[in-house]
Amino acid sequence: MRLLVVNPNTTASMTAKIAAAARDAGSAGTEIIAVNPRVGPAAIEGYVDGALAVPGLLEEIGAGEAAGVDGHVIACFDDTGLDAARALARAPVIGIGEAAYHVASLVAGRFSVVTTLSRSVPIIEENLVRFGLAARCARVRASEVAVLDLEKPGTAARERVAAEIAEAIRHDRADAIVLGCAGMADLAASFAARFGLPVIEGVAAAVKLAEAVVGLRLATSKTGAWATPVRRANAARFAVESGADLS
Amino acid sequence: MRLLVVNPNTTASMTAKIAAAARDAGSAGTEIIAVNPRVGPAAIEGYVDGALAVPGLLEEIGAGEAAGVDGHVIACFDDTGLDAARALARAPVIGIGEAAYHVASLVAGRFSVVTTLSRSVPIIEENLVRFGLAARCARVRASEVAVLDLEKPGTAARERVAAEIAEAIRHDRADAIVLGCAGMADLAASFAARFGLPVIEGVAAAVKLAEAVVGLRLATSKTGAWATPVRRANAARFAVESGADLS
Amino acid sequence: MRLLVVNPNTTASMTAKIAAAARDAGSAGTEIIAVNPRVGPAAIEGYVDGALAVPGLLEEIGAGEAAGVDGHVIACFDDTGLDAARALARAPVIGIGEAAYHVASLVAGRFSVVTTLSRSVPIIEENLVRFGLAARCARVRASEVAVLDLEKPGTAARERVAAEIAEAIRHDRADAIVLGCAGMADLAASFAARFGLPVIEGVAAAVKLAEAVVGLRLATSKTGAWATPVRRANAARFAVESGADLS
Amino acid sequence: MRLLVVNPNTTASMTAKIAAAARDAGSAGTEIIAVNPRVGPAAIEGYVDGALAVPGLLEEIGAGEAAGVDGHVIACFDDTGLDAARALARAPVIGIGEAAYHVASLVAGRFSVVTTLSRSVPIIEENLVRFGLAARCARVRASEVAVLDLEKPGTAARERVAAEIAEAIRHDRADAIVLGCAGMADLAASFAARFGLPVIEGVAAAVKLAEAVVGLRLATSKTGAWATPVRRANAARFAVESGADLS
Amino acid sequence: MRLLVVNPNTTASMTAKIAAAARDAGSAGTEIIAVNPRVGPAAIEGYVDGALAVPGLLEEIGAGEAAGVDGHVIACFDDTGLDAARALARAPVIGIGEAAYHVASLVAGRFSVVTTLSRSVPIIEENLVRFGLAARCARVRASEVAVLDLEKPGTAARERVAAEIAEAIRHDRADAIVLGCAGMADLAASFAARFGLPVIEGVAAAVKLAEAVVGLRLATSKTGAWATPVRRANAARFAVESGADLS
Amino acid sequence: MRLLVVNPNTTASMTAKIAAAARDAGSAGTEIIAVNPRVGPAAIEGYVDGALAVPGLLEEIGAGEAAGVDGHVIACFDDTGLDAARALARAPVIGIGEAAYHVASLVAGRFSVVTTLSRSVPIIEENLVRFGLAARCARVRASEVAVLDLEKPGTAARERVAAEIAEAIRHDRADAIVLGCAGMADLAASFAARFGLPVIEGVAAAVKLAEAVVGLRLATSKTGAWATPVRRANAARFAVESGADLS
Repeated sequence: MRLLVVNPNTTASMTAKIAAAARDAGSAGTEIIAVNPRVGPAAIEGYVDGALAVPGLLEEIGAGEAAGVDGHVIACFDDTGLDAARALARAPVIGIGEAAYHVASLVAGRFSVVTTLSRSVPIIEENLVRFGLAARCARVRASEVAVLDLEKPGTAARERVAAEIAEAIRHDRADAIVLGCAGMADLAASFAARFGLPVIEGVAAAVKLAEAVVGLRLATSKTGAWATPVRRANAARFAVESGADLS
Repeated sequence: MRLLVVNPNTTASMTAKIAAAARDAGSAGTEIIAVNPRVGPAAIEGYVDGALAVPGLLEEIGAGEAAGVDGHVIACFDDTGLDAARALARAPVIGIGEAAYHVASLVAGRFSVVTTLSRSVPIIEENLVRFGLAARCARVRASEVAVLDLEKPGTAARERVAAEIAEAIRHDRADAIVLGCAGMADLAASFAARFGLPVIEGVAAAVKLAEAVVGLRLATSKTGAWATPVRRANAARFAVESGADLS
Repeated sequence: MRLLVVNPNTTASMTAKIAAAARDAGSAGTEIIAVNPRVGPAAIEGYVDGALAVPGLLEEIGAGEAAGVDGHVIACFDDTGLDAARALARAPVIGIGEAAYHVASLVAGRFSVVTTLSRSVPIIEENLVRFGLAARCARVRASEVAVLDLEKPGTAARERVAAEIAEAIRHDRADAIVLGCAGMADLAASFAARFGLPVIEGVAAAVKLAEAVVGLRLATSKTGAWATPVRRANAARFAVESGADLS
Repeated sequence: MRLLVVNPNTTASMTAKIAAAARDAGSAGTEIIAVNPRVGPAAIEGYVDGALAVPGLLEEIGAGEAAGVDGHVIACFDDTGLDAARALARAPVIGIGEAAYHVASLVAGRFSVVTTLSRSVPIIEENLVRFGLAARCARVRASEVAVLDLEKPGTAARERVAAEIAEAIRHDRADAIVLGCAGMADLAASFAARFGLPVIEGVAAAVKLAEAVVGLRLATSKTGAWATPVRRANAARFAVESGADLS
Repeated sequence: MRLLVVNPNTTASMTAKIAAAARDAGSAGTEIIAVNPRVGPAAIEGYVDGALAVPGLLEEIGAGEAAGVDGHVIACFDDTGLDAARALARAPVIGIGEAAYHVASLVAGRFSVVTTLSRSVPIIEENLVRFGLAARCARVRASEVAVLDLEKPGTAARERVAAEIAEAIRHDRADAIVLGCAGMADLAASFAARFGLPVIEGVAAAVKLAEAVVGLRLATSKTGAWATPVRRANAARFAVESGADLS
Repeated sequence: MRLLVVNPNTTASMTAKIAAAARDAGSAGTEIIAVNPRVGPAAIEGYVDGALAVPGLLEEIGAGEAAGVDGHVIACFDDTGLDAARALARAPVIGIGEAAYHVASLVAGRFSVVTTLSRSVPIIEENLVRFGLAARCARVRASEVAVLDLEKPGTAARERVAAEIAEAIRHDRADAIVLGCAGMADLAASFAARFGLPVIEGVAAAVKLAEAVVGLRLATSKTGAWATPVRRANAARFAVESGADLS
């Protein structure tokens, strides 16, 4: 099967890291197509980045649908644009945050999330409520590592994430850790070994859930909130050309 | 005070109707500046329309901030882009759905919402959960009237909305009705008289709440989820020029 | 418009402070009529004070209705007697606790409440659940300052409240502070300046919400729980003349 | 043991009926002292009646404490004044609504409540949330029988309650019925026989729970919300002498 | 009345302690029949012990029903097998955890539970959610005392439980303590005296609630989840003879 | 990988049907080992069947662990014994009810469950609450088809399930259907075609989720509620030899 993995930000090194994690997780017959929008925020840190990333993300999802991919993964832990992507697609769409919470709840009674900046904490908390898994999450913790610092070798980013995991184990009664950023995809295995409990990373989790749903021959239900968008006679082509620097 | 009222869709007749409702509700010293984005969906019916409307909406909010308005109103009942707008603005931002729920809860123990298409029902239900007022809402009902049909004289739109209000009164134990679309802004007074219970319309409610919050000299808190967006060295100017027709 | 602001306790200095805050918040055309019951508890600290204050409060609300006021404010942060007052009145009735929570939720993702004695904490927590805004409240904190100590110059009351605000900012991830007593009405502005985040005080918030609801020409819905009280053939005039000292 | 059973309304025939139900439920060694306030509403139908009944109720509770009773029962299904009574008393205080919900949850997975007027439905629903048993309640139904009509022989009151029970069994998936008014205390046994499922009546339930709690030598905790009321230097004797007819 | 009190583990000294607590709590006319299964886990510490204890527990409940007892108590704080026992029995069945939560909520606004091992904490937390009383529970605390250590004189078990109670009072804003193990049945009175707040122990609480429900002539509703088990033509006699040591 | 699929009842034809569904769903490299306990209930219809099935189920899980399987599936829609199995196993354990809810939530905003007997409805509703997905479930419906009737050719069982699906689509605003019994595993594909929306069956869903979790190299967390059972010095071998016919 062919899975489209969209990194909704425009940082190519992160797309490459996500692609590697997705391919590592994918089964033998799974082809991973990893892309990012041409334009948009370089990282998704908060609501404005998230909102500005969605049109480009939808463009990629639309292109994937046209190309006949079997499933889509949105590789931002905030699950940015997930509902809109589902409305646009017929193939299943899985968000990496969502995937990580579902998988964590299958192997641990309680988990804590360790993410990047504190401004992402409320976004993740809302998603947990919406997906129904808030009661399984002990706490969402910020390591105060900027997303793009995870891309830079030689920073203290990795150890700051590790320090926050240690805090979660000590104080949260957490039985597993969920890494709260696509840019942490390469850290899960070593942290699991180091801390001796399940460490779940969303890109791999989403690839496996996408394989599962595609394998079940299920498609996104086209009634309700995810119905195919209304096609209007006067549908204006979407374009924001202003160049306004909102990020 | 000057309030920017943004209709996040691009239908000018609807912006005019919203402007009229806002001016009717505004106090003597309140100046209403009603705008809509230059490009974007002609109506917001579901998640894709909502997502595609946000960049244009944020551009207007950003312009309003630059012009020093005292407060912002987002005139889409789905409260599209509300969090992103709050992150972008320092002045208070009020969504019309949010405003209607808060006001309804002050005059009625239980209310029902009557909106346009059934695809909007889950979006409104999620918002009610997020704003905390779900327990006060008896039911969200769809009249199956398309947003733009509310703009066309001579259609049955108005009577279909009325019929759904009658159902809500008969079956939901509702003590008030919330009209679930900015395009219904001109219907509240006559329905209130006809049905003999409070009928709350969001544009007027949001203008009054914006006046209240501005009058209290309060601004959006800049910690937490609504912190000012991160300004990155490599911040790419946002532009989607593809012209892909996603709506 | 004319707003009746009822301090449900009998401490005149507190009524004067409340009147000042209400007038400071009121718009140009708003006349504030501030009263307190002739008899009843001198302060409302817990359930018994609250219960004993309600008959006198209702008497004032009834007098206000008879005098044709446009709206009522109940100036006790516990929102004592709010439901009964709404059942008695046709004009809108706003509680100051309720008003503060609604306003706080419009400018901050999360807020903490700082109130007087710890016995009031569960009452406030219950109200937050009832109004639907519990999920937005990080924590309700007691400063252990007695209500009437806020009336005495030269006490450490003010600084103890400030110290608790500092704790809320440090530990609760609060983006705004709600002051949890009508007797703190004069402290909001200086604390906002001192701590650099929104500090919401209920008297001002309730006056603005009352203006908003009256401005929307809305009245309390007379179906459901707030229906006009049943008038019985044998309705005994209410009087507790026993002089039992329950407070 | 001696239990004070307070009917918070002033209708003596109802107090007599409550006393009979309480004595029928009480164990051999239990003495029932059934009283009602001297002044106050003749029936409790809605928030205003409830609020006006509380001072008289508290006077009776205070007298019972002074007389050294072992426990108190508040015989109004709305559990009017329960928190204030607990703050005033050292002996346990049990509300009949509360008691009925707890007992029902021990013998049935789901129950429906059948009460008098629809204005009482939201009050009961709120109590169910506060006591934590809302999830066990399928539905609160109004029979639209006025409280005092239950006192009049020859009315259709009894059959209207029965008709509503039949509806609850047919539509609510209810495994038990809770009778939602102290004035229905004499109906439980015959309805249980007629409908073939547990029918719980609050007066009997509360007497048994009071016996249980007293038997466990437990008293109301005097920390938190139910702490002994603050005794103020300037504590005004409580008296509402106005004779204002608010009911 | 005759009450069957089943200790679902096979430790006779614990059954004896439970019997003593039950008899101490029972009223004059109450006969306590205390039993434990012949085979099964020696203590219930976690889900596997709980599951393996249920068949033996049900055998005792079935024997009690056959012998015509008036009510059943399940004397494990995890309320192991409570639903299955209710489906099997016609007489009321009360769990000691459940009983303790209900009783605690009648005398305290908030309580904390102090149990044995941390692996029992999530089980108790789930039960609190199911019984609806989670909102009244401040925190479930583990003393890390093994169940059977409570049976051994001279250990530090008692003082470790006391130390955890002290923590609960200091940090949880708890107005009462619930002892979270049947093996703590002999500790409640001395802890209540020592700490000066209500200390609730489940065996006594369950005996009193069973007396109450039996006294009300109520039986377990036989519709819904607790309907009498389906009797199948091919019903195989239940026997696990493997001797597999799963504990 | 090798997955152990345990049908916890003793009906061999149902085990065969489950095995076929599991093999149909399994990927190329997945070996399905389908078993059922030697003794226990022939079907799981309610709490007693569920409780009596668990020791036999755990014996199979224990044998699977000893044989080194990579994952376990519990093929009863009530998710009987799921927590105990997780405590016993190191390999991941997936329940088919749980799996169906998670998968349904990935392709549909709202789903309804159609199960067998009404006595299973509360069990399923509780599970939905525990797994956090209750808010996504519109309604749990009973078709009143006995489990074993699904095994008999020529009955009306299939059409009664279909009729209930039609009701769910008409009345529940459901965007997908979850089939609520392992014995319906062969019906999903034809119902999906017939009704034109996603129909999720738990056996296939659980096999795919087990493959996903095993593929992620995750094991059940051994802290918290699912810690390895306590091994006691006096651990009695578990055996219920009584032959008491409790089913």
